[in-house]
Amino acid sequence: MTKSAHNTGASPSSNAPIQNLTATEIAAAVNARTLTCETVVRAFLERIAAREAEVMAWEYLDADQVIAKARAMDAAGVSGALAGVPFGIKDIIDTCDMPTQMGSPIYKGHRPKGDAACVALARKAGGILLGKTVTTEFANRHPGKTHNPFDFTRTPGGSSSGSAAAVGDHMVPLAIGTQTTASTIRPASFCGTFGYRPTHGDLRCVGVKEASGSLDTLGLFAHSVDDIALFRDVLTGSAPVAIAEPVRPLRIGYCRTHLWPQLEAHTQALMEDAAQRLARAGAEVKDVTLPADFEGIENAHRWVSSFEFSRNFTWEIENHWNEISETLRNNRLKDGLSCSFEQYREARELLARCRLLLDPVFEDYDVLLTAPATGEAPVGLNKTGNAALCVIWTSTHVPAMTLPVFKGPHGLPIGAQLIARRNADRTLFSAARWAWRVLSQ
Amino acid sequence: MTKSAHNTGASPSSNAPIQNLTATEIAAAVNARTLTCETVVRAFLERIAAREAEVMAWEYLDADQVIAKARAMDAAGVSGALAGVPFGIKDIIDTCDMPTQMGSPIYKGHRPKGDAACVALARKAGGILLGKTVTTEFANRHPGKTHNPFDFTRTPGGSSSGSAAAVGDHMVPLAIGTQTTASTIRPASFCGTFGYRPTHGDLRCVGVKEASGSLDTLGLFAHSVDDIALFRDVLTGSAPVAIAEPVRPLRIGYCRTHLWPQLEAHTQALMEDAAQRLARAGAEVKDVTLPADFEGIENAHRWVSSFEFSRNFTWEIENHWNEISETLRNNRLKDGLSCSFEQYREARELLARCRLLLDPVFEDYDVLLTAPATGEAPVGLNKTGNAALCVIWTSTHVPAMTLPVFKGPHGLPIGAQLIARRNADRTLFSAARWAWRVLSQ
Repeated sequence: MTKSAHNTGASPSSNAPIQNLTATEIAAAVNARTLTCETVVRAFLERIAAREAEVMAWEYLDADQVIAKARAMDAAGVSGALAGVPFGIKDIIDTCDMPTQMGSPIYKGHRPKGDAACVALARKAGGILLGKTVTTEFANRHPGKTHNPFDFTRTPGGSSSGSAAAVGDHMVPLAIGTQTTASTIRPASFCGTFGYRPTHGDLRCVGVKEASGSLDTLGLFAHSVDDIALFRDVLTGSAPVAIAEPVRPLRIGYCRTHLWPQLEAHTQALMEDAAQRLARAGAEVKDVTLPADFEGIENAHRWVSSFEFSRNFTWEIENHWNEISETLRNNRLKDGLSCSFEQYREARELLARCRLLLDPVFEDYDVLLTAPATGEAPVGLNKTGNAALCVIWTSTHVPAMTLPVFKGPHGLPIGAQLIARRNADRTLFSAARWAWRVLSQ
Repeated sequence: MTKSAHNTGASPSSNAPIQNLTATEIAAAVNARTLTCETVVRAFLERIAAREAEVMAWEYLDADQVIAKARAMDAAGVSGALAGVPFGIKDIIDTCDMPTQMGSPIYKGHRPKGDAACVALARKAGGILLGKTVTTEFANRHPGKTHNPFDFTRTPGGSSSGSAAAVGDHMVPLAIGTQTTASTIRPASFCGTFGYRPTHGDLRCVGVKEASGSLDTLGLFAHSVDDIALFRDVLTGSAPVAIAEPVRPLRIGYCRTHLWPQLEAHTQALMEDAAQRLARAGAEVKDVTLPADFEGIENAHRWVSSFEFSRNFTWEIENHWNEISETLRNNRLKDGLSCSFEQYREARELLARCRLLLDPVFEDYDVLLTAPATGEAPVGLNKTGNAALCVIWTSTHVPAMTLPVFKGPHGLPIGAQLIARRNADRTLFSAARWAWRVLSQ
C-alpha cells in the first residue's frame, strides 16, 4: 500500500504542479489568462487516471465531457470567483448532466432534471464540475468503494467519502459533501484536508437528498482556509470577501468534552500539545466545560436523525425495501421507525435548548478547540469510523472547521477542529487561518 | 356565476352524499367494508367532472388511473388510517406516477423518480392520490388557472390555490399544500375550508420544491379539525390519536396585531364578535399586544424568503430565465438577488429573536385568536390577495389553523385563525375543535 498522497496546505510556488494549486490560485490564473480551463482539468484528470484504480473516489466521471466543457468555457472567455476551478460533489447532489445515484441500487442510472442550488451557484461562478464523488448509501453508514488515499487498507471516513478522498489525494481542489453527524469533518480529518461545516441553514440544500433536515448541512473540502471562505461566498451567492486578520489575541476555549475518554492516547497528546502551542503563539487558551445537558446530546441526536430519516425515506422503504442495505435497515431505520413523534419532539427540544445554552459560552471565547475524530482513520473499509466527536457541534448548528495539522502514530492525517458561535462563520475563518499558521509549522 | 359549493364542517348524516363525508368517516366506512375505494373515488370524480370546467383546481388528474388504483386496493383489501380516502397534492410535490410541473413551463412534463415523503406516508396509510392540484408558479405569486369555487370571478388565494379550491368545492376531502407566507391559511379562509400550518419542521418536506426552507412547511386542507389531526398523525408516521377535550376553560389571547388597520371593517366586526362569543361560551379572552419587535417581521420575512428563494432557484435562473414570469422576476427574485448574505443573516436573526419573544406570551394563553386574511377573497384572478396577516405566525414557526366560521358581506367564506405555541399542535387542535363548536352555531 502506498502513501503517495501529496502534502497539503502550504502555499505552493508558482511552479507547483497544477494539481497542488489552491482554488484561489487556479481562479486567479484562469481569470488572468495564464492558465486555460482545459490545461487545468487535464492536470486533474491525469492525477485521477494515475490514482483512481486504488483510491476509487469517483462514482461518475466522464473525462471527455469535462474536457469539452472546459474547452467551451475557454472559447467563451470564462471569468468569476471560481473561474476554471474543478470541483467534485457527493453523489446525493443533483446534476442536470450526470447521474445521481445516492450510493443505492434504487437510484441506479437516475438522472435528475436540474442542478442542485449549490452546483448551479458554483457553475455560475465559473467552476467546472468534474464528476460525482462516492457517498455511503444515502449519506448514512453503509460504505461505498472508496479507500483512504494515505493508506488503502483504511476507511476514508464517511459519509462524504469520495469528496474527502478526492481532495485529500489532489484529484480536485474543491469538493462538496454534507454533514448530518460527522460526514464532512471526520473524513476531512482522515484524508488530510480542510473540512468545513457551516452554520445550519446558511448554504442552500435544494437538490441534495435530505437525510435529516433539522441537522443536515452542506460540507466543504479544500486545501486552505482561504479556499473554504471563497467557496462559501460563492455558495451564498456573494462576491468573495478576504478573510480578516484577528484584531486582538484569539480567545480559545479548549473543549475536551465528556467524550475525551474515547480519544486515542496519541490523539489526546496531540490535542494537548496544540492547545499549548496556540497559547505560546499568543492566544488566550482556557479550558471549557460544557453544561451537563450536553451529555444527553448523543442520544437526542440519534432520535432526531433516525426519526426524520425514517420518514424522509418512506417511498424507498415502501417500494424498495429489499434494495436497502442491512446496515441501514437494522440501525437508522430500525431506530427511526420505532421512535414516536413525541419522543422525537422531546429530543428535538433538547437540541434546541443546547443551542441556546451554547451561546453564552461564546461570550468568553472566539472559538473552541476540540478533536474532530478519535484518531487516525481506522483499518478496514466496512465501517467509516467513530462519529461521536462531531455530534455536539452538528446538533447545536454551530460552524466547524478541521485543519489538517497532525500526523498520527502511523503517519496518517489527523485534524484539529475549531468551532465558532452560530452565524460567526467569518470569525471561524479568521481564527482558523491564524491557528493553521501556528500549528502547521 | 354560481355559488353552488357545498356547505362544510357540520357532521353529515350517514345518508350524506359521499363527497360530503369527512376523511374520518370515509376511512371508517372503508375499513368496515361498508364502502369500497372504487365507490368513494367515483363519487369524487363525479363531483370533479361536474365542476372542474369552472373551478379549474386540477393540474393533473387521470380518472382511469385513479379508478384502476381504487379497484386494486379493494381487491387487495385496503386498511389503514386513511383507507380509501382520496387526497390531492399541490403540484410542487413529487410523485412517481404523475407529472410534477410546479406551475412553470420549465417543468412541463417533468416526471420525478419517487414520491415525496408526505405522499408516500399518505399512501402507506391507505390514502388514494387523486391528482395534482394547481399551484402558483413555484408556490410564489404568479397565479394558476384556479377560480374561487364560491364565486368564479374571485381568486381562490394562493399559492396552494388548487388544494384549497378542491377541498372547498368537495372535489376531495383532504389536500396538501405548503406555506412560506400565507399559502395555506389564506386560501383556506377564501375557500371555506379548515387550513392548518404545522409547527415548522414537524412534517417532512422531502420531495417538495423548496421556496424558502427556513419558513416552508406543508399545509393541510380538510373539512373538520378531526380530519386535520388525523392527516397530521399519518404524515408524522404515527398511529392516530383522538383530540383531547380541553380540561379547563380555554385561555384565549385576542391578538389584533399592528396589522389590524389592513382588515376590512366587516372582517374587524366579525373578529370582535368571535372574541365575544368565545368569552360568552366560557373561554377567558383577553387582548394581547405583541412586543414592538414584531413590527419588523414583515420586512425581515421579505428578505429571508427572497434571499433563500433567489439562491434556491439558481439553476432555473441561469438556464431558464425567459421561462420565469415577470411577476416572479420583478418581485421575489429582484428582492432576493439584491439582498446580501449579511442582510439576510440579520433578518433571519430578527425572526429567531421573535420566536423566543413569543414563547412567554403562551405562558398566559393556550391559543391566540387572530384574522387569517383581510376579508373575503378579492375579485380578480391575477392576484392572490393580501398575505400580511400570516407573516408573524409563519415567521415564528408556530402552528396555526383557520376555521371556516364566517360569511363576508358578499356571502363568501372568511375564517378565524387560532395560533398555538411551537410544538403545541395538539393544544391547537383541542382549542380549535372547541372554538369551532362555538363559532359554527
